[in-house]
Amino acid sequence: MRESDGQDIAALEQGYEAWLSYRTQPERKDGNNLNPLMELAGTVYVTGEESAALGPAVKEWKRGIASMLGIEVDEAASPAGKALYIGIFDGCNEGIHRLFGDGVSLAVAPEGFAIRISREEGCAVIGAHSYAGLLYGVFHLLRLIGTSGTVDSLDEVVNPANEFRMINHWDNFDGSIERGYAGRSFFYGENRFLDNEDRIRDYARLMASVGINAIAINNVNVHYYETLFISQTYLPQVAKIAGIFKEYAIKLYLSVNFASPMHDGELDTADPLDASVREWWRLKAAEIYAAIPDFGGFVVKADSENRPGPFTYGRDHADGANMLAEALEPYGGIIIWRCFVYNCKQDWRDRKMDRARAAYDHFKPLDGKFKENVILQIKNGPMDFQVREPVSPLFGGLEKTNQIIEFQIAQEYTGQQRHVCYLVPQWKEVLDFCTYAQEEDAPVKRIVDGSLWGSRHGGMAAVTNVGDDLNWTGHLLAQANLYGFGRLAWNPELSSEEIAGEWVRLTFGSDPEVYRIVTGILLDSLGIYESYTAPLGVGWMVNPDHHYGPNVDGYEYSPWGTYHYADHEGIGIDRTLRSGTGYSSQYIGRNAERYESVEECPDELLLFFHHVPYTHRLHSGQTVIQHIYDTHFEGADRAAGLLDSWRSMEGRIEAGLFRQTEARLMEQAEHAKEWRDRINSYFFRKSGIGDSHERTIY
Amino acid sequence: MRESDGQDIAALEQGYEAWLSYRTQPERKDGNNLNPLMELAGTVYVTGEESAALGPAVKEWKRGIASMLGIEVDEAASPAGKALYIGIFDGCNEGIHRLFGDGVSLAVAPEGFAIRISREEGCAVIGAHSYAGLLYGVFHLLRLIGTSGTVDSLDEVVNPANEFRMINHWDNFDGSIERGYAGRSFFYGENRFLDNEDRIRDYARLMASVGINAIAINNVNVHYYETLFISQTYLPQVAKIAGIFKEYAIKLYLSVNFASPMHDGELDTADPLDASVREWWRLKAAEIYAAIPDFGGFVVKADSENRPGPFTYGRDHADGANMLAEALEPYGGIIIWRCFVYNCKQDWRDRKMDRARAAYDHFKPLDGKFKENVILQIKNGPMDFQVREPVSPLFGGLEKTNQIIEFQIAQEYTGQQRHVCYLVPQWKEVLDFCTYAQEEDAPVKRIVDGSLWGSRHGGMAAVTNVGDDLNWTGHLLAQANLYGFGRLAWNPELSSEEIAGEWVRLTFGSDPEVYRIVTGILLDSLGIYESYTAPLGVGWMVNPDHHYGPNVDGYEYSPWGTYHYADHEGIGIDRTLRSGTGYSSQYIGRNAERYESVEECPDELLLFFHHVPYTHRLHSGQTVIQHIYDTHFEGADRAAGLLDSWRSMEGRIEAGLFRQTEARLMEQAEHAKEWRDRINSYFFRKSGIGDSHERTIY
Repeated sequence: MRESDGQDIAALEQGYEAWLSYRTQPERKDGNNLNPLMELAGTVYVTGEESAALGPAVKEWKRGIASMLGIEVDEAASPAGKALYIGIFDGCNEGIHRLFGDGVSLAVAPEGFAIRISREEGCAVIGAHSYAGLLYGVFHLLRLIGTSGTVDSLDEVVNPANEFRMINHWDNFDGSIERGYAGRSFFYGENRFLDNEDRIRDYARLMASVGINAIAINNVNVHYYETLFISQTYLPQVAKIAGIFKEYAIKLYLSVNFASPMHDGELDTADPLDASVREWWRLKAAEIYAAIPDFGGFVVKADSENRPGPFTYGRDHADGANMLAEALEPYGGIIIWRCFVYNCKQDWRDRKMDRARAAYDHFKPLDGKFKENVILQIKNGPMDFQVREPVSPLFGGLEKTNQIIEFQIAQEYTGQQRHVCYLVPQWKEVLDFCTYAQEEDAPVKRIVDGSLWGSRHGGMAAVTNVGDDLNWTGHLLAQANLYGFGRLAWNPELSSEEIAGEWVRLTFGSDPEVYRIVTGILLDSLGIYESYTAPLGVGWMVNPDHHYGPNVDGYEYSPWGTYHYADHEGIGIDRTLRSGTGYSSQYIGRNAERYESVEECPDELLLFFHHVPYTHRLHSGQTVIQHIYDTHFEGADRAAGLLDSWRSMEGRIEAGLFRQTEARLMEQAEHAKEWRDRINSYFFRKSGIGDSHERTIY
Repeated sequence: MRESDGQDIAALEQGYEAWLSYRTQPERKDGNNLNPLMELAGTVYVTGEESAALGPAVKEWKRGIASMLGIEVDEAASPAGKALYIGIFDGCNEGIHRLFGDGVSLAVAPEGFAIRISREEGCAVIGAHSYAGLLYGVFHLLRLIGTSGTVDSLDEVVNPANEFRMINHWDNFDGSIERGYAGRSFFYGENRFLDNEDRIRDYARLMASVGINAIAINNVNVHYYETLFISQTYLPQVAKIAGIFKEYAIKLYLSVNFASPMHDGELDTADPLDASVREWWRLKAAEIYAAIPDFGGFVVKADSENRPGPFTYGRDHADGANMLAEALEPYGGIIIWRCFVYNCKQDWRDRKMDRARAAYDHFKPLDGKFKENVILQIKNGPMDFQVREPVSPLFGGLEKTNQIIEFQIAQEYTGQQRHVCYLVPQWKEVLDFCTYAQEEDAPVKRIVDGSLWGSRHGGMAAVTNVGDDLNWTGHLLAQANLYGFGRLAWNPELSSEEIAGEWVRLTFGSDPEVYRIVTGILLDSLGIYESYTAPLGVGWMVNPDHHYGPNVDGYEYSPWGTYHYADHEGIGIDRTLRSGTGYSSQYIGRNAERYESVEECPDELLLFFHHVPYTHRLHSGQTVIQHIYDTHFEGADRAAGLLDSWRSMEGRIEAGLFRQTEARLMEQAEHAKEWRDRINSYFFRKSGIGDSHERTIY
């Protein structure tokens, strides 16, 4: 058991501290590269003018340094001596002006920062254009210390790649969380705002530490009471949360009900082209910004899964979004309009209708028609956060529209935080996906960061995985996804390994064996989960409604547009232009060709694009049916192996952290067998083809 | 539109009056057989001593005669003139003594009655040993009038075949009804007793009119608050309901929690052999009977579907039931102990475990070990109220134990009162099933009525289908099941046609075309429902949890013991002794042989007992797979035909009754197509065998 002195042991053992537990740093083997900090870190200098806004940053610095290095930090009274200087470039902090060379500030983005540490020059300084940038700079330096990074001769400018680094909560006012797997909401319960300021502040701090700058606090499915969040009934309480977020440079957003003007019968229409409706929203915007001057804007799920929207009035999504955008425009507010629009009452008998096509079919024709303060929020794939699906063809398809990519940190279809599934590699793959838009090198990350098309706005959003569980995320290892999303939104060039490594060091400390094993578990986990669940990109095969656990036909004869079409001879959805739904033609150039061709289509997406016989040979050389058997037997074995790996660390990790994770891995190992046997039995019974290794199938 | 003068039109159109709407009787074509009544019915004579207890009966007579014959009934002051005499045989009503011959009373059972009407002798009299019998006599005579039965020269003794004619409510205190499809409970809501005396009285009257004499008012799954129904907290309110029931000769029963003594920590065990537990129940019985002197007794679901029971303490069901029986014995109370005991956490991989075996395996060894005031309540089949399953082998298997058969009027697996499914033919088939116990002619009905083994107690119980919907049962036609259960419990010799005919006449009046069509719909409905749902006795194939709608694999890989084992080549459960679970050997003689043999097994149960190839030929000459296709196409067509039949009566039935039923039949016609297509597609995709008529399968 490693030492944990200086920390709140109970909070640490529960996982509440997460990656900000600031573990005591060991003597470094490579000698003295902490020395510049040891000399400088014990004093911090900020100006009186900036000290209020920089309070949270300074407090964080003191906390981190005390905990990690055992140094109680003093605040210097004058900018003369050795200290860590923190200040705005154009502010009145003399240290900033003295210690940064000319022109450094020109390289720093609005929320970026510059940092310089030099033992030789006796200098340590963080400068930025904004308090947000300074806060990020402090967290950056603390992270470097906590992960044994080099802090000597540091001289760099660090800018976020994405303007929007956003978290979406699907919390309901009754305290439930749609697709929440870590307890109840810590914002609401029983249709009232909870008195939970400390936890909300701790949460804001966690989010700021990884660069999150926008949070929408309520479910995109806006129910009765939540519709009133933008009314005087609840605005004061929303404003209180916005105030806490502001301390950590986070803007608050609200999901709104498109039919709000009709709520309680105020108007009898929500038609976006109706003058009274526009006036209603204009006045509503004034009301909101009076209560929350730095309010971020609205997230809107319209005409989707039975939510109201412009279609009711024969209008399109541009009409709807622009109407709202116009209302928020005077205040700099943003409309984030979701593209998750499809027919959820489809006839399963109709193989020509294809839910995968829907977002592109709806939004491609509207490209260029949205106002500048509208951003379309597009799910990473065309379906719904499956363990494997292709990248949404809207990325590349839309050229003249602001775009945010939407990921799901909550593991709705990836084990619901009862299975470990480190999602960063999936997100990386999506961000690195080459769309062939405009130029050969047009990866998704350059579309969402706005650089490819020169978009006004862009970024990344994700549905969060937190709740009121003591460790925030239910499964301790699911914290890595929350951490990883923030880090990736800041810098998509970080590798999955780097992010996992950072999180493990910050969470568990510096034991190299723990580092090796936990990063190994994380990096293996997505592949393992994929291998024992739905095969080869076909998706679904889960129990309806709650989406946990195997059920091969669970969504097969349903109205949700989610089919595998397995019969006695084969399986898969024909989405080719030649003989199927034509979805493959929504891609550009090489991608369209590759997906159209059964020979060229990548194995992992084969059944997403093609209906093939069970005897079809994959590029791997295996038949489809044998691939199903092999991956499911292997997947369940490897899931059991995760538990073994974890258990090998007993004694190296605090008992609280060890036990809670062990319990989840036990459930996963058991449940993976259930997946294995149900999937294998289904396909054996249906195909009549046995396993070539004659393992037991039921 | 037929005339409905004299009735509460609104209540009638809603269906609230049900079969007691007492429609105006037309002039009879066959002349004067109502004449004796026309002379006699207008005056009723009961003695002053008996008038209080006979109040409901006299009131009913007045109401029925006024409504049906337009005669306002007077009460005679003396037993001299022409009148309908109603009285107890050994009472002080001189008319009874005068008008019944000697010895008639000897033929009348405790709850039976004698009735004599003779125009020639100017006599109309109902005599019985009990007020219950007199009430039944009055309802009997009113039914005869309402169904155009012969009332001239009537001279008969009418006795109920079964001692127990019981209704089980699965109402919860929160107002929900487990497996309820007709609204919320009319007893409770939001964990309180509703102020609903009038409706409860109307309900008691409806039940008494068909001879029901026992009602358990709460769900067999006894939750937190309901456990306190036997405490001072709620006993006064339970007593109030019991008082209303008593007016209509109905005894109130309560479902109890076997672990009641541990509730709120009073005791730390519920071990039936523990002295403190026995004492607890003894005192509890005293408390209950102090509040409700004619309390019926307890219904107990123990060690079933996660309910507590004697198994926890290593005791058996006889220990558990006898302990409770001992407590109620001094008061004449009865313990009704359910045999629905099975392992609901079964491994679906284990084909040797068989839920169908469970009730017999648990209770057969206990035969003869139960006290005299214990009655085992046995579901009609070994599984759970499927549209088709064999008769429970406990009937015939138990020789020395009181038995009640349990049917389900609520259509949990038979269309949930959104589809019409007249269940009387199913119940008849079960009651007439020859068990081969003791003698060749040993039908189930002679076991449950106690005559075969000379049992002390016996009868029929059923889970009811009523709620707070205006028409009681959601689907108007589902009233026929409620009516039919009572009638059948009274007299199992009535045919399905007779019961349907009575109900149609009482509900819709005397239009012969309406009679022909509605009885036709009822009598066809079970066969139609069976034909488009799970085939050949295999059962299930429904959506888990709520049990509505098709889902072939819905319960296939579940822990509930409910499998069809369909694979590419065949389907069915091998329950033979030779190669399967051995369930068939729980039957006696000829039945065991017949079910064991794949050649002799009746088609409709083939897949319940045997796993056969899709190409297996049925006795019908059809293959299994073609049978599935044929019945499903035909079934959906016939379901559509029900709607056409109904619509052909427009104008002949009050608009309210017509429309509400039309809406349900429309849903059924549409939903039957969904059943057809999902079942057919599943088997076509799995077997690869096409329909020989080349109809569309998806």
